[in-house]
Amino acid sequence: MSSSNSALPSGAALQDEIDSLNAQITKQGAHVRTLKKESSSNADEIASAVEELKRLKLHAETLRKHQEASDPSKTFNRKVFDELILRKMFIVPSFEIHGGVKGLFDLGPPACALKAAIVDAWRKHFVLTESMLEMECTCLTPEVVLKTSGHVDRFTDLMVKDPVSGECFRADKLLEDVIDELLEANPDMPTEERERHLRVQIQADAFSPAELDEQLALYGCKAPSGEPYGPSFPFNLMFKTSIGPEGTSVGYLRPETAQGLFVNFRRLLDANSQKMPFAAAQIGLGFRNEIAPRSGLLRVREFCMAEIEHFVNPDDKSHPSFSSVANKELVLFGRDDQLGSGKTKTITVGEAVSTGLVNNETLAYFMARTQLFMERIGMDPSRLRFRQHLTTEMAHYACDCWDLEIQSSYGWVECVGHADRACYDLDVHGKATKTPMVATLKLDEPREVEIAKLKFDRKALGQAFKGDQRVVARVLEALAENWADFEPVATALETDGKTTVDGFEITKSMLTWTKETKKVHEIKFTPSVIEPSFGMGRILYSLLEHCFYQRDADEQRCVMKFKPAVAPQKCAVLPISSSDEMNAVVDEIAASLMDSDLATRVDKSTASLGRRYARADEVGVPFAVTVDFDTLADGSVTLRERDSTVQIRLPKTDVTKVVFDFVHGRFSWDEAVVKYPVVQVKED
Amino acid sequence: MSSSNSALPSGAALQDEIDSLNAQITKQGAHVRTLKKESSSNADEIASAVEELKRLKLHAETLRKHQEASDPSKTFNRKVFDELILRKMFIVPSFEIHGGVKGLFDLGPPACALKAAIVDAWRKHFVLTESMLEMECTCLTPEVVLKTSGHVDRFTDLMVKDPVSGECFRADKLLEDVIDELLEANPDMPTEERERHLRVQIQADAFSPAELDEQLALYGCKAPSGEPYGPSFPFNLMFKTSIGPEGTSVGYLRPETAQGLFVNFRRLLDANSQKMPFAAAQIGLGFRNEIAPRSGLLRVREFCMAEIEHFVNPDDKSHPSFSSVANKELVLFGRDDQLGSGKTKTITVGEAVSTGLVNNETLAYFMARTQLFMERIGMDPSRLRFRQHLTTEMAHYACDCWDLEIQSSYGWVECVGHADRACYDLDVHGKATKTPMVATLKLDEPREVEIAKLKFDRKALGQAFKGDQRVVARVLEALAENWADFEPVATALETDGKTTVDGFEITKSMLTWTKETKKVHEIKFTPSVIEPSFGMGRILYSLLEHCFYQRDADEQRCVMKFKPAVAPQKCAVLPISSSDEMNAVVDEIAASLMDSDLATRVDKSTASLGRRYARADEVGVPFAVTVDFDTLADGSVTLRERDSTVQIRLPKTDVTKVVFDFVHGRFSWDEAVVKYPVVQVKED
Repeated sequence: MSSSNSALPSGAALQDEIDSLNAQITKQGAHVRTLKKESSSNADEIASAVEELKRLKLHAETLRKHQEASDPSKTFNRKVFDELILRKMFIVPSFEIHGGVKGLFDLGPPACALKAAIVDAWRKHFVLTESMLEMECTCLTPEVVLKTSGHVDRFTDLMVKDPVSGECFRADKLLEDVIDELLEANPDMPTEERERHLRVQIQADAFSPAELDEQLALYGCKAPSGEPYGPSFPFNLMFKTSIGPEGTSVGYLRPETAQGLFVNFRRLLDANSQKMPFAAAQIGLGFRNEIAPRSGLLRVREFCMAEIEHFVNPDDKSHPSFSSVANKELVLFGRDDQLGSGKTKTITVGEAVSTGLVNNETLAYFMARTQLFMERIGMDPSRLRFRQHLTTEMAHYACDCWDLEIQSSYGWVECVGHADRACYDLDVHGKATKTPMVATLKLDEPREVEIAKLKFDRKALGQAFKGDQRVVARVLEALAENWADFEPVATALETDGKTTVDGFEITKSMLTWTKETKKVHEIKFTPSVIEPSFGMGRILYSLLEHCFYQRDADEQRCVMKFKPAVAPQKCAVLPISSSDEMNAVVDEIAASLMDSDLATRVDKSTASLGRRYARADEVGVPFAVTVDFDTLADGSVTLRERDSTVQIRLPKTDVTKVVFDFVHGRFSWDEAVVKYPVVQVKED
Repeated sequence: MSSSNSALPSGAALQDEIDSLNAQITKQGAHVRTLKKESSSNADEIASAVEELKRLKLHAETLRKHQEASDPSKTFNRKVFDELILRKMFIVPSFEIHGGVKGLFDLGPPACALKAAIVDAWRKHFVLTESMLEMECTCLTPEVVLKTSGHVDRFTDLMVKDPVSGECFRADKLLEDVIDELLEANPDMPTEERERHLRVQIQADAFSPAELDEQLALYGCKAPSGEPYGPSFPFNLMFKTSIGPEGTSVGYLRPETAQGLFVNFRRLLDANSQKMPFAAAQIGLGFRNEIAPRSGLLRVREFCMAEIEHFVNPDDKSHPSFSSVANKELVLFGRDDQLGSGKTKTITVGEAVSTGLVNNETLAYFMARTQLFMERIGMDPSRLRFRQHLTTEMAHYACDCWDLEIQSSYGWVECVGHADRACYDLDVHGKATKTPMVATLKLDEPREVEIAKLKFDRKALGQAFKGDQRVVARVLEALAENWADFEPVATALETDGKTTVDGFEITKSMLTWTKETKKVHEIKFTPSVIEPSFGMGRILYSLLEHCFYQRDADEQRCVMKFKPAVAPQKCAVLPISSSDEMNAVVDEIAASLMDSDLATRVDKSTASLGRRYARADEVGVPFAVTVDFDTLADGSVTLRERDSTVQIRLPKTDVTKVVFDFVHGRFSWDEAVVKYPVVQVKED
């Protein structure tokens, strides 16, 4: 409704065209030079080649200007935006009157409603449509769970301290910043040198403490006190607490919602009648004790996440609905392009999988669904891209990871992770709790497999392990189900007479075995996990930036172009002047709208109509109904659309149905201006 | 749709009738005895009086039997209920495979959807309808905020330890339990003695440590080790953590959502264009480190709350919409009745306010709205009552408090608090931050007020307070705005030459004053707060119990009679037998339902139709559509209503609209059985 289609391309397509033009210009330039050098060239030929070069340059210049004008990150007015966000109470610092706390923000009424709408849309787009199993697990998490998942040992950022003040800093961010400063101060740096610095920058968060210390020293980083920083060391980002009155049970606030789903895997599989693949989902809070939070809502200590854990057979990562998204185009920024061309590719999801750029169908399917979700809630598609993790960024167990990055005034920011985590999570929890975290694949045809048939010497086993002998036997039996798994044990026992399995020392005297072939009708496997993980706070903030504009570049006329489906309030109702008679009609229309669960804004203040429209624009109310003198005569009202400011005239009894249908996507403004007469009204 | 109206009364009305009958029986018995003693009585008269006595006794017996049969707390089958809750994954212990943590539970898919529906209903019933300002504040809270609110010092329970094992117990619960045991072991205890024990029990959580120690000793409470408990001492129930990497900033997880709204009061008032009264609301997590959690979901360490802070002029606690609820009847259990008759009263909200039983209109208005909300989501109205806090239970600043209690198998449990907290909260935050937390009342007519006009000796002030002199002056100016506030200062300065104001010692040399009269056009005041506070987890659990029943008392046929609006899944779709043709129709109907955002359950398993209906009943799916051989011929399907098990036949193309209208309350089952033919189908 609001996006006007220009004849010129935009976003990544525009960049691609500019890049292609630049290549042509280089080529044509070389051609002209060659012609001029060669004695055989005639003047006409040269003139025509020069003409073509000029044409190309002019076209490139036009496109560059268009790009600059249409790039919101260049026209974005932070001062006006920030002032609006605070004044209309979208987002405010938490505990402000008590001095506030870094990295904590509250959502005020419009952002709270917007967030509820985004969460609702997410639930419909993902959970409902695909019958995912949604859970709500606790934030408080006992230490054993996060020790098992690896968070207690590895959920850290590298930190350095100012040796004088004791102030703490994130070491990788310092390195990134100093490189930014260096590049900015040297705009004429040779390309090769610039790229070397950028490669260091892109890997900043993957360096070891020693490497980071070396880089910080190399770039001459100094603490605010003027001294060099102390050595960098890992700081755990989890908030620690104590559960229960005894003070002996350590707990943490979860850093992600995923673990709650992993530990419930067996119950979830039961709830899904043992059918695979399936997905579980969770929307809830995550907490990270950021070292030095900044960037407003983008790096905070408490945030809403929405995570999906799609459990799938590692040998078959196809997705049943893949064909429904295969033709969807995505902007992909692959690992090779990040270290090489520095450019994104726009290709279809199907192509991304068939060329091996994205590891598998399920991962690519969710990337496409995420793109569709972003478009559904009103994000600007030209400011979205998927960036693949570098090999150094990924956890050792991960197969492939792609972040959806959203462009805002802070640059390209990771808002949704898409990770193929293999079977790591189920594996570690299964091992730590001695719980089989497996699913069953029923085979169409029975299959022959090689197994080890074990015979235990119960007496030897009992003497060695006492109460643990059953556990030991179970562990060995599990290995024996597949000869390939048992073979190393067999070899070790035969050569060394002993070996260690799951911490138990096994000797040759405890068992004998034979290699056999067995017919099986089903296969047990530990599922792989494909995890789309949404940072809802970052999405909310990005959406605010994408929806913000100033009408006619006027700082006094800010507009939030929220889609009707997610707008915090759906309709404003205003009397043209305040009389009991008009107010009664206003109340009647507002009550009817509310009755259909449409959040309504009544503004009976004495401000001018134009001023009241502007106020509604500031919080993104998509429609405004005005009751005027004609209303009292014939029952008709005007309905104004926010972005076009066009108004139509319709019976007041039609208002609720029309607005309801707009909000639910059953009727469009384009249809409305055909069905109802458009009226000319001056907004004073 | 599902509740069949019996001719006999139920709930509190039934109890009232039984009580009244018992009184008549006592009276009639005395009458018979008198007649028999008196020589003037004739035999007919005596016989007729005896007959009446018999009639009364028989009627009372019938009612008692009816009460017993209809009392769900007597017929409730905990074993079957608990097994269902776990098996269908409504609620499961958190981190179960790692051994679990007391007081932490996860919501599985059906409860998660039910909770989302309850939250959605709450938002529509309260926030949307009354244009409340909803916020989302953080759980992490810096110490200064909770020190100011009083939680750091007073948010405690009294705890005792077993001196041998070190195990911790809640002291008041031990006392309550020992009295329960005593009463149960002595059913023939004289009424007076029994009531004395009950009075001790009801005050258990209001005793001081010394009083509790004395009572525990009196009742002979012993720790599990056999020793007497150690002395009771206060244990703070907040989870403590540290915010930021320095480890110097103490934070807590919020014990309630309210404080986030209080500290935002000034911005909220601005957002409401300075208009009073208004309400702010918040839905979010609260945390309490319970000493010894038990009672399943009713006493947990992490829970969802929904709180409303209605800010109102303390001199005018009327509510503009009060008349809309004045005739609503509530079951009230006032403070006098708790200590006296032990019986509830059923009266209208209007009567409760006019007789002074409930302190003011706004408090009573919200009680009525809460009752309506509970009915809206499907709570059994006969198992709801409002219990007033005893004077010993209330905080010193509170005017009046009423808890909505819901009856479940755990007894009557507080699920919603309704408290008039006066201006305590705004006052303490205002004082601690030196921020004026006031609203303005514009007067229709200017009013004359007595003030003090101050003249400071700036030099004396500066010498005494240096940088603080402005703060001191501002504090005195604020008092001077009302002579009644300033008079004590004036008197003290005149008699003693000095006094202390807000911690500053003021001497006579610092200022002079004159008493004057001033015309004012507005009055500033600190608003009072009326706070309805909902424990959403407790409401969810109570609703599960209220909706649970066994069809024909069969343990194998459990049903959850969720209202369509809140049911986790709205419709099941089943093929009578599995063929590609039928499955295609099932998928087509399911897709259409999902497209209208109706959560759908597809069950193509080979189990019998009856078994599949029973499975859908267990998770409370209100409607089931069955595709059979006739469907393939004529496109019609059957639609079954869960509680009546009645089925109608309708075109498959009508299904989505019919189910959508059921869910949104636009069409009822009673209308459906008139519009469509009812069919006889045996559920095998």
